[in-house]
Amino acid sequence: MSRVISLQEIQPALKGIDLLEAMEQAFVGYSCGHAVVPPVGELVFEKPPGDVHIKYGYMKGDAYYVVKIASGFYDNPQLGLPSSNGLMLLFDQCTGQLLAVLLDQGYLTDMRTAAAGALVARMLAPPAIERVGIIGTGIQAELQLRMLALVTDCRRVLVCGRHHDGMLAYIDRLVDTDFDIELTDEPTEVAEVCQLIVTTTSSREALLRAVRPGTHITAVGSDTAEKQELDPGILAGADIVVVDARAQALSRGEAYRAMQAGAIVADQLVEIGDILSGNHPGRTHQQQITVADLTGVATQDIAIAKAVYERIVDAH
Amino acid sequence: MSRVISLQEIQPALKGIDLLEAMEQAFVGYSCGHAVVPPVGELVFEKPPGDVHIKYGYMKGDAYYVVKIASGFYDNPQLGLPSSNGLMLLFDQCTGQLLAVLLDQGYLTDMRTAAAGALVARMLAPPAIERVGIIGTGIQAELQLRMLALVTDCRRVLVCGRHHDGMLAYIDRLVDTDFDIELTDEPTEVAEVCQLIVTTTSSREALLRAVRPGTHITAVGSDTAEKQELDPGILAGADIVVVDARAQALSRGEAYRAMQAGAIVADQLVEIGDILSGNHPGRTHQQQITVADLTGVATQDIAIAKAVYERIVDAH
Repeated sequence: MSRVISLQEIQPALKGIDLLEAMEQAFVGYSCGHAVVPPVGELVFEKPPGDVHIKYGYMKGDAYYVVKIASGFYDNPQLGLPSSNGLMLLFDQCTGQLLAVLLDQGYLTDMRTAAAGALVARMLAPPAIERVGIIGTGIQAELQLRMLALVTDCRRVLVCGRHHDGMLAYIDRLVDTDFDIELTDEPTEVAEVCQLIVTTTSSREALLRAVRPGTHITAVGSDTAEKQELDPGILAGADIVVVDARAQALSRGEAYRAMQAGAIVADQLVEIGDILSGNHPGRTHQQQITVADLTGVATQDIAIAKAVYERIVDAH
Repeated sequence: MSRVISLQEIQPALKGIDLLEAMEQAFVGYSCGHAVVPPVGELVFEKPPGDVHIKYGYMKGDAYYVVKIASGFYDNPQLGLPSSNGLMLLFDQCTGQLLAVLLDQGYLTDMRTAAAGALVARMLAPPAIERVGIIGTGIQAELQLRMLALVTDCRRVLVCGRHHDGMLAYIDRLVDTDFDIELTDEPTEVAEVCQLIVTTTSSREALLRAVRPGTHITAVGSDTAEKQELDPGILAGADIVVVDARAQALSRGEAYRAMQAGAIVADQLVEIGDILSGNHPGRTHQQQITVADLTGVATQDIAIAKAVYERIVDAH
């Protein structure tokens, strides 16, 4: 009765789905109160270091509820394994029957996170972008850039990594794109020359200390109370600090860290869904600084799991 | 890489496992602080009525972590579907790799709950039992009685259901056992004549108002803040009120309801693991009244998922 769907089935199905549209609905649905999304479940491991997030919930009146388990085990690459992993489960909202196990190995989480990054960039990045900056060289660093191709014409990219090998491998993986990628190991350099910056690391201390007027930053790396990529001063100096879910920002991510530091207050936070639905104007001129702190919300998982499931079922 | 294990594989594997022993380890491990068990995740649905529980965690130093999703949708029988459902997921604690999807359809949750009931009965029931009382006629009512056969010689049973058809079907399902089952639709009658009572319903109001000295009650039905089978006065009058997990009893189950009513206080609650490990004496004479309120703790799920997985993997 339950379908077990492999990554090999999921990947082609995803190609036919407008992920930005799906994420738009996910954020608007969340912010307008159509979603039931309990607090994120979390397991943290120290040795080896890892964290597991359980995100779950449902859209009221929808046919499904979704439970998503995603993990990050940061020593995995040393074992030849990807650091991120996971699966999604889709259930019938009327009976609790398990409809599908999506064995996506974390791919759907990676893709919905990248799609959210592109959506936020389309919404908040300054009109003129000379250079895109990417902090990190992992799978999110790759997918964010691929997705940004959908929303900006800029093809000049500065990538910042800790290791030269990692940066070269990053360029190799993106060789099929038309991005012109330069390298640096100095986050400060990214802040100097890029107007659209995406931070994608699992850092536990700030990598960026300041940015110039006319910059948008999307921070996707920090999704726990411990992780942090941005100095609280960046959020304090921003014209708009956007989060996917205010409730989550109270306990995890960049906004949480900045609030803990006393740099910003919760009332400043604007939800993506409120900008998308026109309740907040978003960026109003080129010189503003905008920061989007994405910790990932269950409605994104619900939206992508539903879209993939329905596409695969309809195809049969 | 991940194994998808069907109910058809799980059922025979379970026959070779000492579930009472597994539950004993689960409760002792929980109470002595060897487990990491975050608060239960919960989704509640009103139309049709249902609840979903996500229980997850790990034993420190073990090889695994487990996420279990279990649902109860109480109108399902009208559709010809079982009310309970679910699955368990077993992951590698060092890498986050998904090792197994146990598509048990809620069977492992049902079995570990029944095994916990038998374990608690062995531990707390008075030495002399003339009659076993079961409130409810569903799958738990059946499995609890089957498991009790392992821990008591008593074969006289009084079953209490709301509908005559349900009670007759119950007797039919247990025809392969040597229990002598009588029927009643009056919970009061069960309280009058039974010394070991198990309540297994999803009731939201007390079904039992009082019991006689020399009675043990195991309440397995209530696992949310709303559900209740026992009048708070029963817990107030009990010599010992046992729970599987004190932390959970603060927000769900009979103990929660009795605390809300001011009938008992949290300090009275004794964990099963503390009796099993000798930190609390448990029942000390025949005439005591003991109540065990089981809301179900993730260590039970971890224990049964691990045992089943290892048995299936070892067999190959």
